[in-house]
Amino acid sequence: MQLPSTLLENAVAQFSKLPGIGKKTALRLVLHLLKQEVSEVQFFGETIARMRRDIKFCSRCHNISDGDICAICANSMRNQQVICVVENIRDVIAIESTQQFNGVYHVLGGIISPLDGVGPDQLNIETLVSRIEKEETSEIVFALNPNIQGDTTIYYIQKKIAHLSCTITTIARGIAFGGELEYADEMTLARSIANRLPVQQYVK
Amino acid sequence: MQLPSTLLENAVAQFSKLPGIGKKTALRLVLHLLKQEVSEVQFFGETIARMRRDIKFCSRCHNISDGDICAICANSMRNQQVICVVENIRDVIAIESTQQFNGVYHVLGGIISPLDGVGPDQLNIETLVSRIEKEETSEIVFALNPNIQGDTTIYYIQKKIAHLSCTITTIARGIAFGGELEYADEMTLARSIANRLPVQQYVK
Repeated sequence: MQLPSTLLENAVAQFSKLPGIGKKTALRLVLHLLKQEVSEVQFFGETIARMRRDIKFCSRCHNISDGDICAICANSMRNQQVICVVENIRDVIAIESTQQFNGVYHVLGGIISPLDGVGPDQLNIETLVSRIEKEETSEIVFALNPNIQGDTTIYYIQKKIAHLSCTITTIARGIAFGGELEYADEMTLARSIANRLPVQQYVK
Repeated sequence: MQLPSTLLENAVAQFSKLPGIGKKTALRLVLHLLKQEVSEVQFFGETIARMRRDIKFCSRCHNISDGDICAICANSMRNQQVICVVENIRDVIAIESTQQFNGVYHVLGGIISPLDGVGPDQLNIETLVSRIEKEETSEIVFALNPNIQGDTTIYYIQKKIAHLSCTITTIARGIAFGGELEYADEMTLARSIANRLPVQQYVK
């Protein structure tokens, strides 16, 4: 695809670098921007650049933040004694949107995965351990994706904090709401039977 | 979806304005940019803004251009006497990628569509007529989308240039390559029979 202008070509190349955006989609986005006011597109570019330049990470939980401490950590209405350990910022957003968790978070920034060259040292595990020690955390809730890497990470951190007196839990695994038993994989079904709950607790 | 930072929220809002990009996709794009270097994202923003600010339109054919006259109009190897009339810049790119057309273009910037409030005055029709008069064009090839608006536009322009001596043609309509006869709509099939070609000409 030959474009009639290098300015256009550069803009298309920049958009094509984004995940899930090919050259044709990039061209559609650029031609859309071309129809907007100059000031609006200027604002678009500045907003994106400013976001990357000025964004901060909470020094306590490594979540995205406008200041030194994020809004969740600074909120005294939340239970600061319960820490939910997640892989990335997207997981924080997903859990927050359920409005079911009133504790605070700790973003690992990834998951232990030797095949991808990610070891414990590249993750925010040290800060988690020292945080639990210092803040006398009562409970750690692991909310990691249910796969080998997630389980490895849980196992590793659990060993690291075994000497501390906090409760360690993980989010429930089982049949998803709206799922069908006959299509569930064996491992999920087996776990959901092994971890069955009293009905009183379930309908609570 | 509650985001933990206003900087993030503004960036997501900007991306969500683009066509076909919802809030979830916008967040994925922004989080991807967040993993890139500050200088890279700065460059991204600047490239987009510069594209909109500095891009020019060819004063002759209204195609996108880096200068006053686009590369196609400035190319003396192309037949400047044959003008292909298209709706927008995307059509120029599509036709150019076939490498089958050696003439020049004229971008109307839209199509006559009273229902959408687009009349002839909002399109680059006046400049087309005066261009044909001045340049003594030998042929006008209409490459507009095959629908009522396209046919109306062809009819309108044809009336305007009836007094001039140039040939007026339109791109062929018929069964698309790889298409199947039984699934073609009746109008297309009827036209392709009415406009049948001698086989010698077809296999040329």
